[in-house]
Amino acid sequence: MKATVYVTIKQNVLDPQGSAVQGALHSMGFDEVGKVRIGKYLELDMNTTDRAAAEERLKAMCEKLLANTVIEDYRFELEG
Amino acid sequence: MKATVYVTIKQNVLDPQGSAVQGALHSMGFDEVGKVRIGKYLELDMNTTDRAAAEERLKAMCEKLLANTVIEDYRFELEG
Repeated sequence: MKATVYVTIKQNVLDPQGSAVQGALHSMGFDEVGKVRIGKYLELDMNTTDRAAAEERLKAMCEKLLANTVIEDYRFELEG
Repeated sequence: MKATVYVTIKQNVLDPQGSAVQGALHSMGFDEVGKVRIGKYLELDMNTTDRAAAEERLKAMCEKLLANTVIEDYRFELEG
């Protein structure tokens, strides 16, 4: 089973990395770019076939390691 | 128009960050996790309404700044 996890910074938290990329894009002439937000994208192979259990385990992984839930949101998708 | 860009490490390139996360998950008891690959996820607001032009510009941004095309792949989606 393949899992895809998206970790994004919460809307009301500053994203300095995104601001830096926005500034760089502007200085390169891409003036149409507005706000930029940067997050993480993870692909995990999971050796399990039980979808409900996998969702439970993935949630635990996100809460404990993959996302800092104070400042970040996460969501995931399961395939296969 | 809102753009979402996914930057991932090419399949045949080592991903030490992914290996570190995999090791950490194993040491926390998540033994069912196999390979982990980590990429970047970007959300961009674009002040344009011309979809074809936006795609062209986004491709240029990815090639020039957002992705290192020697070791990374990218794909993007446009909404709105």
